[in-house]
Amino acid sequence: MSDFSAELKPAEPQGSDVLAQERAGSNVNVDQLAQHLLHRGDFLKQQKKILDVIEKRPYFCKKNQLNLARPDRYHLGLARAKELRRLSLEHDWSLDDYKMADYLTDEMAPYALQTVMFSTSIREQCNEEQLKYWLPKVENWEIIGCYGQTELGHGSNVKGIECEARWNPDTKDFTIHSPTLTASKWWNGSLGRTANHAIVVAQLMLPDKSTGKLKSHGPHQFIVQIRDMKTNKPLEGIVVGDIGPKYGYAAMDNGYMLFKNFRVPHSALLSRYSGVDSESGMYIKPKNQALVYGSLTYVRAQIVMHARLVLARACTIAVRYLSIRRQFADRDSSGNAPEVAVLNYPTVQIRIFPLLATTYALHYTGEAMYNLYWDTRAAIEKGGDTSRLAEMHAASSGLKSACTMLAADGIEVCRRALGGHGFGGGSGIIPLNNDYLSKPTVEGDNWMITQQTASYLIKRMTESTKDPYPSAKSGEPIDGQFRLFLQNRKSSRFFDIYSNEEDIVKAFQYRVSFLSYQAYEARIEQKQPWTSLMISLHRLSRAFSESLLVANFYKAVFESTPNPPLDDATHATMKNLFRLFALFTIDLQSSEFILSGALQPQQLHNLTPSIQKMMEAIRPHAVRLVDAWSIPDYVLESALGRYDGDVYNALWQKAHLENPLNLQTFNPDFRTEEIVMGEGADNARRRIEKLALGVHGHEQRSDPKAKL
Amino acid sequence: MSDFSAELKPAEPQGSDVLAQERAGSNVNVDQLAQHLLHRGDFLKQQKKILDVIEKRPYFCKKNQLNLARPDRYHLGLARAKELRRLSLEHDWSLDDYKMADYLTDEMAPYALQTVMFSTSIREQCNEEQLKYWLPKVENWEIIGCYGQTELGHGSNVKGIECEARWNPDTKDFTIHSPTLTASKWWNGSLGRTANHAIVVAQLMLPDKSTGKLKSHGPHQFIVQIRDMKTNKPLEGIVVGDIGPKYGYAAMDNGYMLFKNFRVPHSALLSRYSGVDSESGMYIKPKNQALVYGSLTYVRAQIVMHARLVLARACTIAVRYLSIRRQFADRDSSGNAPEVAVLNYPTVQIRIFPLLATTYALHYTGEAMYNLYWDTRAAIEKGGDTSRLAEMHAASSGLKSACTMLAADGIEVCRRALGGHGFGGGSGIIPLNNDYLSKPTVEGDNWMITQQTASYLIKRMTESTKDPYPSAKSGEPIDGQFRLFLQNRKSSRFFDIYSNEEDIVKAFQYRVSFLSYQAYEARIEQKQPWTSLMISLHRLSRAFSESLLVANFYKAVFESTPNPPLDDATHATMKNLFRLFALFTIDLQSSEFILSGALQPQQLHNLTPSIQKMMEAIRPHAVRLVDAWSIPDYVLESALGRYDGDVYNALWQKAHLENPLNLQTFNPDFRTEEIVMGEGADNARRRIEKLALGVHGHEQRSDPKAKL
Repeated sequence: MSDFSAELKPAEPQGSDVLAQERAGSNVNVDQLAQHLLHRGDFLKQQKKILDVIEKRPYFCKKNQLNLARPDRYHLGLARAKELRRLSLEHDWSLDDYKMADYLTDEMAPYALQTVMFSTSIREQCNEEQLKYWLPKVENWEIIGCYGQTELGHGSNVKGIECEARWNPDTKDFTIHSPTLTASKWWNGSLGRTANHAIVVAQLMLPDKSTGKLKSHGPHQFIVQIRDMKTNKPLEGIVVGDIGPKYGYAAMDNGYMLFKNFRVPHSALLSRYSGVDSESGMYIKPKNQALVYGSLTYVRAQIVMHARLVLARACTIAVRYLSIRRQFADRDSSGNAPEVAVLNYPTVQIRIFPLLATTYALHYTGEAMYNLYWDTRAAIEKGGDTSRLAEMHAASSGLKSACTMLAADGIEVCRRALGGHGFGGGSGIIPLNNDYLSKPTVEGDNWMITQQTASYLIKRMTESTKDPYPSAKSGEPIDGQFRLFLQNRKSSRFFDIYSNEEDIVKAFQYRVSFLSYQAYEARIEQKQPWTSLMISLHRLSRAFSESLLVANFYKAVFESTPNPPLDDATHATMKNLFRLFALFTIDLQSSEFILSGALQPQQLHNLTPSIQKMMEAIRPHAVRLVDAWSIPDYVLESALGRYDGDVYNALWQKAHLENPLNLQTFNPDFRTEEIVMGEGADNARRRIEKLALGVHGHEQRSDPKAKL
Repeated sequence: MSDFSAELKPAEPQGSDVLAQERAGSNVNVDQLAQHLLHRGDFLKQQKKILDVIEKRPYFCKKNQLNLARPDRYHLGLARAKELRRLSLEHDWSLDDYKMADYLTDEMAPYALQTVMFSTSIREQCNEEQLKYWLPKVENWEIIGCYGQTELGHGSNVKGIECEARWNPDTKDFTIHSPTLTASKWWNGSLGRTANHAIVVAQLMLPDKSTGKLKSHGPHQFIVQIRDMKTNKPLEGIVVGDIGPKYGYAAMDNGYMLFKNFRVPHSALLSRYSGVDSESGMYIKPKNQALVYGSLTYVRAQIVMHARLVLARACTIAVRYLSIRRQFADRDSSGNAPEVAVLNYPTVQIRIFPLLATTYALHYTGEAMYNLYWDTRAAIEKGGDTSRLAEMHAASSGLKSACTMLAADGIEVCRRALGGHGFGGGSGIIPLNNDYLSKPTVEGDNWMITQQTASYLIKRMTESTKDPYPSAKSGEPIDGQFRLFLQNRKSSRFFDIYSNEEDIVKAFQYRVSFLSYQAYEARIEQKQPWTSLMISLHRLSRAFSESLLVANFYKAVFESTPNPPLDDATHATMKNLFRLFALFTIDLQSSEFILSGALQPQQLHNLTPSIQKMMEAIRPHAVRLVDAWSIPDYVLESALGRYDGDVYNALWQKAHLENPLNLQTFNPDFRTEEIVMGEGADNARRRIEKLALGVHGHEQRSDPKAKL
């Protein structure tokens, strides 16, 4: 067969010419904007440095990933994790460098827990003696660790976990035991096949002095060796394994683990804050764990900053490809009008541009959260001032929920806007979607944690109602907003959202105050059951988070000189992105704005036209606005989203030259069981049955009792 | 290692007991409701019949699917497709039986095009001579076919495809040719590795009599042999292959294909309606293709009916598992209160129950579309009355868009509501989501086809404004609604959506009329550009589709005796599902209701409380309401959604006994490249490089020009 495909070019215009034109048509300063967005930790420099090391190494080639079986994805993931570790020593990488490599390889790898949850627990929860023993082992990677908290039966409700650590007064040690199947550890990353040590979270069971019966003092952390250091086989008394394929995270061995009366020494209980007196068997209570809130905020600030880059990735792919893709001539054109770039359709813009604006909104709020974190921390370390912890925790809970939802939903909106090619492996959106869809659930389920935000707002509103006219400024920042609301809520108001940006911020704040007051009335005054209010509380948290996103964006681009600074033209585009983000959000939630009195119904008429006007203003800058996010082609791994715009050649190469299925010829005739041409029917039958039935054959399928 | 896991049970309560209690606590008549929903085509009987044949056959075991590499998924898919074909002969299956098998195996298989697009084209587009030649070959499966329309550069805009079929006056045959790379066929199912024949859609190029130059008469269908019947290798002049991994449809070989001056005879052009006179080389114009609209409606009715089952599947999994899953005690409880079933939280109900109601809404509208199709067809066949074709086409376009969006989004809402286990392979939602996410794009992109609906509504509104008080009833059904609006739009109105269900329907219709009038004003009176109106037009179509969903649901449960009939208690629950669906939809779109004047702002206050009340009323019946959909465990393939509720044992079995990764032991030490314990570092390196680099090694990665 002669392959004449190499002689052909895509139809005009070529993608590279289109993107060159798009870039020439805008005066947004990409380099400056990139610095503005990514100055923290010298991100761009670091990105280049690490990319140079890994991009050309065979192990880190991504092009075959979607073809692999899940077990092979783990094999490859472990090999990559090891190589990264070797490279980090060779190149003397910092922890941040290491994290950059994680971001670039874009894979949750089997060592992921070692540098995060495992070593964090060691560092933060060990007493001095424990630290001296364990920390060198962790830092030298003599042991590989994981973090075993979540169980088959309990995730969100950590207090409900069933795994027990019983104190043995005679032998002065603990017995770790799983009393039920649901007590099995579950989901714990790196546990399945990799780790030889685990932090195991278990109910600390001590004899009650009065009754003599065992009583739980709640979940505590234990460090436990779980596999043999030579063979990597589980120790006796432990059943451990990988939980199997998931939506994403194919390279990670999320695990399960059961204990049967497994003994660990007294020193296994991590005892920096609390412990068990080995003589008396008495519980030693923790003193102050307030700082835990702080680091949770830090983790959540990272989630917001990560959300911005994830969404920017989807937007980069969408904006570049949809600038190049053409489909249909303008309906009002006559004769042989050329086809229109898909990005010029308002029905495409309305899906992509608000998300593009959202990437910027996420950025400024991520920055604000980092600042809040460092300020609060400094205040605590200086004079023990913990007054902003509650606010910080409430904001970070609500924002974790709102921002991961915006990013997770946004990826899929972008994918669908890509049309057919969005469903294909060349889009680069498949692994992005598959992995990111864990985020609305992990680190606090998005619907559950909003209760914490609402609870905080009700508390502040309650305080504010008690003293609506305080003599001096007092309380937390939100109190001022609430008091203003309480003083003015019965007078008439009008927020001019179409020509006054400060009024936009005020409208969002008014809505939060109104919903907080409603929640306060229902819960505090009318004493309605908490559960019955949950839907309103979730909405309240959402409203609060949106008001933070809008306020932080406003502050950054209207109230202060952007840092690092921006050209006027670039700055003006940021302002339009603010307006688009704010008006689009109002549109989505417009009935809440109406209900709360933050908007008048007749104001709604202008929403869609105003949004459409903003989108027209942003359109010429769209390609440069995604360029500014500086996402390397290696991260995008997308034929559609490549920087050079050579979309169709790249799609063709992926299909025609990189697809292993095309190396085989098949027998399509149903009269034979032969599948690959020439293998014969009997061979094929045996092979296919094995594929279908997997490791344990036919007998056990769909009968979970078979194991009993 | 001793495996003690078999001794353990999940913590109380057992899932099976919970579901038994749930089922005992409701008087919804499941058998009757199942008959009511699934009587068409004797669905339940057929489901049982086919399930009995395939369920226990090794090839059709699904449990290992998520572990397989994509090429192996195709191998298995082809093997299954062949086996289904053999079974259909052995058991004398009808085409409907065959489709049932497709539904149950839940896999888009490599023969899928043979029974649908390929044979439909043969049947509908062949002239008598062609039919006599081709139909027996298709029906005897002597040839395996596919349908090649979409190209790399063109999907939605079929008129823009680039593949050409040039008439050769001398040899009286055609040359099929791909002038560019973007002219490559792309996405076409069964083309990649399986089919030996294809319907190829190409621009029919004939010499213009006056200029002598070739001129296109638009896309036409050709039947073309593409592979050798013995070797299954591509014929000379054709480059064909599989496009590679996609979001879903792993078992299907979606393909690409280029032609280089490939000759086909005059008879290759399917010539029932149009053709080329072989003597003169003149084009023979088609007479009437109106019936094409009709079958498109039928396909879309099937899409709606399929959407109902897809969403019911997600709801079945969610309702069963979330009844069993417990997390947290009630916040207002004291002491040792038990944990609450997750389904009792309003924040979970608000995500699942409206979707459950949506499955029923989809059902009644699917039924209505079938009826419309058969009525229209009968009217045409009786007296050539084509008056309802336009209405039918408009409704089916809007509903395809709205219903596939409801189902696609709904699956993911259910998945997230499952918490962590929703991300796991035991959820059963992964393949459902991956495959179904094609639906918003295929058979008419969901954002594009709504223009057709809006265009129809503008036309009808224009007619109605011309003659708002016609002497006799005339025009299409929507005209009555529009005229009522035109007559009354300036007078005051109040729709009592909380106590009058007919008013709910009227409110939805008023909103459609208002938006249609707005669109009419903008387009017809003010002559605004079509493109600038696209967002409003999409919303108009959405509003129209929702009003159809609400009206059909209302008619079925309020205006007529349900067919087949329902017990009072069951019927009453249907009414509550109607209310929930309608109020929830109003809530989502409330600002449009306000803007159009169909609702007053103060009416919004009652929305959430009313929705919550409906959810409370539905809660006791939730399990029975999903049971009624009668989705077999074999289709669910879900540990979480199993009929018997034995969730945790099933999750355990899947992880512990069916996961091939657990058969291998790994070397976690980064100091060696060894991956599987004992394989040695060198072997591992070679193996891993091959996994990473795929079929063509390292040199070609990220350089699409390498092929040139």
